Amino acid sequence: MIRTRADVARTALDVLTTEGPEALTHARVAEIARYSKTTLYAHWPSRVDLIAIALDALGEMPHHEPTGDIRVDLVGELKAFRQAVQDFRLDRVLSAMAQWATVEAMAQIREKVNTEGQRPIRALLERHFDGPRLEAAVSMLAGVVACPSLMFGTLPDDDMIEEAVDIVIVGAGGAPAVR
Amino acid sequence: MIRTRADVARTALDVLTTEGPEALTHARVAEIARYSKTTLYAHWPSRVDLIAIALDALGEMPHHEPTGDIRVDLVGELKAFRQAVQDFRLDRVLSAMAQWATVEAMAQIREKVNTEGQRPIRALLERHFDGPRLEAAVSMLAGVVACPSLMFGTLPDDDMIEEAVDIVIVGAGGAPAVR
Repeated sequence: MIRTRADVARTALDVLTTEGPEALTHARVAEIARYSKTTLYAHWPSRVDLIAIALDALGEMPHHEPTGDIRVDLVGELKAFRQAVQDFRLDRVLSAMAQWATVEAMAQIREKVNTEGQRPIRALLERHFDGPRLEAAVSMLAGVVACPSLMFGTLPDDDMIEEAVDIVIVGAGGAPAVR
Repeated sequence: MIRTRADVARTALDVLTTEGPEALTHARVAEIARYSKTTLYAHWPSRVDLIAIALDALGEMPHHEPTGDIRVDLVGELKAFRQAVQDFRLDRVLSAMAQWATVEAMAQIREKVNTEGQRPIRALLERHFDGPRLEAAVSMLAGVVACPSLMFGTLPDDDMIEEAVDIVIVGAGGAPAVR
């Protein structure tokens, strides 16, 4: 069962990211993973179960090992996020989760996956920000990777990531310099 | 034909944002708009054509009227973006566009819609930033609205929008204050 579970999870994630959410069906996963549909339905009765197990296959996202230097650590974490978007096609995973969020079980999975994903950046920023400024900074740094990816199918280069981190670090300093 | 086109566009957008991308089919649009499937196929032969006409119905997004005060204008534009996400379910539209981006015609439509959507924020930021810093700032401000929406199904409150704008405006000032 452990072997089956791992096979099905990986296959479901592959189908989701390469063929799109509409292709993620019991029939398609059964065909590729070479299990019977009966087996799949027995363990994962609904489509939401298939999606949930696909997200399990994301496993532990790789993260940057903190050095204690806020700039180095934020840049490192954003580069790790960029790499994960590329390796795991997180842009498609995010889109699929957003699309299915009207299903309550799916909304909970999305909440968990995205909260976990944001945790390292939030932990770094919490040393310098709190309240709405913290929330803004977390979304802004997530956005520098997620927005080009979700809106244009591109990823930020190193310069863009470093500029974003500098903007946020300056923002920790205090009052606006330009009005 | 103009009447038909407007009816079909509005219906297609309604189906996309309320029932999801999988529901956006000729059969479903024909049923709701009360046209024959033959009529729909005659004018919009493919599914991409249906998606394209749905996006047409977004029309001109409402934007903030610039005052010349960079802070007021950025806050105003982000609030207009937040309103549009709510009114037009732009989170679902963005997800659907990302999902279909493997189709070349769809990738072009997405590029156009998103470039147009970002234009007012980009125009405001161009006065203070250029190069990778400009690109970072555009993504960060788009992200403060788009990320909570796409990742958690929530929208930023006024405080969060104002904090994001202040962080970016301070960032225009120069070197990092915290290392």
